[in-house]
Order: sequence, then C-alpha cells, then structure tokens
Amino acid sequence: MENKTLSDIKINLVEHSKINDIDFENLSFGNVFTDHMLVCDYTNGEWNTPEIKAYAPFTIEPSARVFHYGQAIFEGMKAYKDEQDDVWLFRPDQNYERFNKSAVRLAMPEVPQDVFIDGLKKLLQIEKDWVKRGNGKSLYIRPFMIATSSGVIASPSLNYRFCIILSPAKSYYSGEVKVVIADHYSRAANGGIGAAKAAGNYSAQFYPTKLANEKGFQQIIWTDDATHTKLEEAGTMNVFFRINDTLYTAPTSERILDGVTRKSLIELAKRENINVEVKSVLVEELIAAAKDGSLKEIFGAGTAAVVNPIAGFGYKDEYFELPKLEKSFALHLKEKLTNIQTKVEPDTFGWTVKI
Amino acid sequence: MENKTLSDIKINLVEHSKINDIDFENLSFGNVFTDHMLVCDYTNGEWNTPEIKAYAPFTIEPSARVFHYGQAIFEGMKAYKDEQDDVWLFRPDQNYERFNKSAVRLAMPEVPQDVFIDGLKKLLQIEKDWVKRGNGKSLYIRPFMIATSSGVIASPSLNYRFCIILSPAKSYYSGEVKVVIADHYSRAANGGIGAAKAAGNYSAQFYPTKLANEKGFQQIIWTDDATHTKLEEAGTMNVFFRINDTLYTAPTSERILDGVTRKSLIELAKRENINVEVKSVLVEELIAAAKDGSLKEIFGAGTAAVVNPIAGFGYKDEYFELPKLEKSFALHLKEKLTNIQTKVEPDTFGWTVKI
Repeated sequence: MENKTLSDIKINLVEHSKINDIDFENLSFGNVFTDHMLVCDYTNGEWNTPEIKAYAPFTIEPSARVFHYGQAIFEGMKAYKDEQDDVWLFRPDQNYERFNKSAVRLAMPEVPQDVFIDGLKKLLQIEKDWVKRGNGKSLYIRPFMIATSSGVIASPSLNYRFCIILSPAKSYYSGEVKVVIADHYSRAANGGIGAAKAAGNYSAQFYPTKLANEKGFQQIIWTDDATHTKLEEAGTMNVFFRINDTLYTAPTSERILDGVTRKSLIELAKRENINVEVKSVLVEELIAAAKDGSLKEIFGAGTAAVVNPIAGFGYKDEYFELPKLEKSFALHLKEKLTNIQTKVEPDTFGWTVKI
Repeated sequence: MENKTLSDIKINLVEHSKINDIDFENLSFGNVFTDHMLVCDYTNGEWNTPEIKAYAPFTIEPSARVFHYGQAIFEGMKAYKDEQDDVWLFRPDQNYERFNKSAVRLAMPEVPQDVFIDGLKKLLQIEKDWVKRGNGKSLYIRPFMIATSSGVIASPSLNYRFCIILSPAKSYYSGEVKVVIADHYSRAANGGIGAAKAAGNYSAQFYPTKLANEKGFQQIIWTDDATHTKLEEAGTMNVFFRINDTLYTAPTSERILDGVTRKSLIELAKRENINVEVKSVLVEELIAAAKDGSLKEIFGAGTAAVVNPIAGFGYKDEYFELPKLEKSFALHLKEKLTNIQTKVEPDTFGWTVKI
C-alpha cells in the first residue's frame, strides 16, 4: 500500500459556508451534510490524491458496478467536542480496521491509513465548527466506498471511490422501542457478508422491518438463519441481554458485526464490575427468563444510537414487556461511555483521539 | 399503480449515433452501450413520465441510499433479430414479474407494466439497428432500479430511479469452465434476499470467486449456507446435473433465483423427452455419481450464458473431470432454446414476443 502524506491532500474550500442556515437543535439524523467532503478515487490499481472539496453530487455511469453488483461498504463514526472546544474521535483505528476487512470481503481495495485516518482528521479540522458541544450532540462521520467501473458483467470493479461525508447529529433513535424476534427472515448467511459493513446487508432488512412496523414493532432481533434459535443482532445494532445481574451478548461471527460500541461496552461493563458473558442467548432461554422475571433488560448498541434500551419484545403471538428499572445497566453504561467520548470523565482506556 | 400510455414517454434522440464506431465482431460482454437509455424516476409516491434519452452519466448525491444501504435490483434479458430483421424478446413477462418481486423484497416500489414493458419495446424500436443477426448475437437488456434519496439513515429510500440500458452482446462465458463446490462461503441466507435479483447478492460472491480463481476454478457451485450439503446455484446461474439420463435441478427457494432460462429448459427438456426432476442434489450424491460414472454432465443456465457446460468440479481436495459426450443434453438444449429465441425453429411455447 503506498504511503501518502498530508501535503498530498488537495484542498478546495467553499466560498460560503452554509453553517448559519442550520438549526442544530432540530436535526433529523443523517439528513444535513457539512460544507466539505473528502473524495479519493482508485484507478489503474492505485489510490489517487485525496481531495477535500464542496459536498456536491457525483457524476457516475448508469452501468457503474455499485448499481448492479452492490460493491459498497461504509463505516459509522462520531466526532465530539469537549468543554475546551477540542474535537475528539472515538477509537478511529477500530473503524479503519473494520472498513478494510469489509473491503477484503467484498473484493474491494483496502484504503491506506493516510487517506482514511489522516484525511478524516484534516477534514474535521476544516469542519470543526460543525461539531457542537453537549446534549448528546456529535458530528456523525460516514466513510464509504463504492465500485465505479462501467460494465454490466458480474465481476469486481477495477475502479472505486472512497469518500467521507459528515452530518451533524443529535441522537439516532427516539421514543419507546419494541422489537420482534425474527422467526422467518434473516439478515445474514453463514459464510456470507453479515460481518462486513456492506450496503447489501441493510437492503435485506427493510422489508422484514416494514412488516414488523406494521405490527407495532420498531425493530427486529435477528436470529441465526439456519434455525432461528440464537439471538444475534437488533435492527442495525448489536444486542445485549441482562438476565439477573449478568449481561450477555453473542460472540461475533461471520453473521454478526464486530461493533465498536459492543466491544467498548464489554470492557466498560467489566470496569464497572458488571458481569459480562460473551455467549449466544437462545430464544427459548430469553422467553423462559422473561416468564420467570429474571430478564431485566435488553438493549441495542451501535455508534449512531450508542445504547438503545428496549421496552419489550414479541415472539410469534406473544408479547413480553420488560420491567422499568431505576438502575438500568443500559443507562448507566450509556452515560459512562458518552462521558468518555465527550471527555466529561477521564478516558482510562485510551480510546479517545484528539484532532 | 397508475396507468401510463406510450404517448407519455418523452423522447429525446441523440443527434449522432455511435453505432458505426462499434466492432460487433469483437465485443466483450457488457462494456458497450447503445445510444439511448430509458429513465423513469419515482418521487412523491408516484412514477414520473419515463424518458428515452442519450446514454450518459447520472448526477447523484454522495448520500444516496443506494451507496449506503444497497437498495438496488436488476434484470437480465436479451433481444434477438430474426432473418426477416424482426426483433424479438424472450418471455419478458417473466422478467417483469420477477423484477417486481425483487422490488417488494427490497422495500422498493413496483414498476408499472407501461414503464417496464412498453418502455422497453419503445426503446428497442429506437435501437433496433443495434440488434444483430446470427452467431449467438443479441442485444443484452439491463433494467435496474436504485434508491436515490439523500440521507445516511438505515431506512428505505423515498425516491428511486428505474432505468433500462442496452449492451450489444456475443456470448457471456468462453473457454473451459471448472467449478468448485462451496464448503464455507455462501451467497444467500434462509429468509434472506437470494431469490431476489438484488445487487447485494453479487457483492457477496466476488471474494469467494476470487479465491476459487486462484485455485484454477472459474466459478463456484453454491451450497445451502446452513449445512453446505445441498447443491444450489453455479456462479450467477442456476445449475443442472445429469445423472445417467435424468436431469436434476434444485427447486427454487428463498435462496435460489427463479431463473427464466432454468424454467424454460425444464419445459424444453420435457418436450425433448428428457427426464427432468426438480429436486435438490446432495454433494455426497454428486460425488458418488462422479465416482461410479453415472454423472454425465453439469451445466449452468442463465440469460447471459444461456447454457454453460462445465468441464469438471472440485470438492475440498478432490477434482472430478466430467466425460466429454458426443450427445450432450447441455448442447442439445442450448441449440433448441437459442433456435426458439432467434426464430430459427417455431416457438411452440408462445415464449417469444415481437417488438
């Protein structure tokens, strides 16, 4: 992989920022983008010079491989601003590593660290006014890569575009979340791309989620596709179950995303003296625990939502309401993790990286 | 679904055709496109007026859902020219129906028949000089739909673009094809999108196929993801096995594409007094048949390749060469089907549709 230096990045700033037109108190997630984006093309077997320029539409062939064969991957990250107006990233090395794992699984080229990490830092320096303080505010970061070669033949693209776009954010989910346990549809196959952050995985979820919505559930807890007996993910997040005072989450696999929030919560829970076991929970175990009262909490974990408490779950024709706890692990861990991310509490793990 | 009439199609023809620059004897599959394409956008809950205009790049948001969440489906069809210079489609109703089934599974809007079928016919009338006679020549047709709404939130797009592009073609595969039986990677999950012609399914195949290529195999025979014991598809095609004088092909399922060539070959084989059984063949049955000499042929079936004979297959560390037959079912059925498609033989099935 070639080595680029920051001086290689071409920078073309906009003349007028649109930041003053934005109401940062009333943002819906992922709809507003900052003034600039980073774009880096891969052609003739190598990465070109990255460019930071105005966020604007692409021009792309109707026959581009991304439209036909789905070579498209992404990451989700956030930047936070502390009380001293410094901007921080949370474990960017983890997202960078996972992005390149996704790239390999989809037969796409790996992105050099200088383009992904250093390019992101440079972009954030330029867009630092878009990172706001307090109240769960952050700047959501979306690195992604698409296949751009023309040609309707089912083989990997030769050309690719890597891009980073930024969107100011409040929080991802709101309101009470009820989930239904999947007993027919699935998000990932054994030996498939479920562990990659691949666009195609999400397209598989929308229709079953729509059916769930029609029955009053906001999300689906996905199960293993072969037997639908093991609990695996919740919507687009990893999932944790608290039975008595132990937290359970499934081990990562080819079907399950190796979530950065998931792994951080496991470490954080240990520090907080919460017993955590990385172990598949079976549907029948969950239902038994719901019935005997030992099931205390279920929550999703992901970059966008951080921690998303779940109010109850459905399975076939039954519905199980979860207790409303005064001292929930979900809210405790969310507060601790957010405090680390936003530098309110000391980061004893070395997870935060200053821009 | 609203009803459009042909008079609703906007037509903007190019001033100068590029057809005289094309060497129709030396085409690589899917790389050259005709002068025009059909484009129809879905906005505010309805399909706009379709437009036939110059094949040219799109302008699309970096945050378009297709890049991030993979809502993208397509079809593959062909137009043929007969000796009287009439242009024919093969079972377009089947592709149209399947396209809309794919749309439903990916939470995308169904495309009206007037846009898909009548729009395609109008486009082919304009591009009829691009359909050449003889030698397996055809005009490959690629209808597709992508999600165009801006926004990095994992929910279905509100806006979509349906498009038909055309590419003059000779034949899809060439040379000897050896396949390897999947014992780890998979293309589709139970309850997943394997039966949809979804872009995301293809992105999952490229990396395992690359690994197979490195071992000297051109394609993979996919097996069921849960047990890897049932033979399901070959590369991007359906697959047939001839054991003694019976042809076997797997029943369609949520994991297997309901191929138009597959279903046509089943009917054609019956007419030709070939015994056909729609039944899963197990890996162990295939290997036993290869060892005792009862396995005579394996071939792929799909629109691009029509019929693709396979020379041999690998499984784990073994390789099994297939016999070279004087009278193969594959070549007989390919000839018969191609003769129907190109109007060399009478179409007793009513499959061909004149433009």
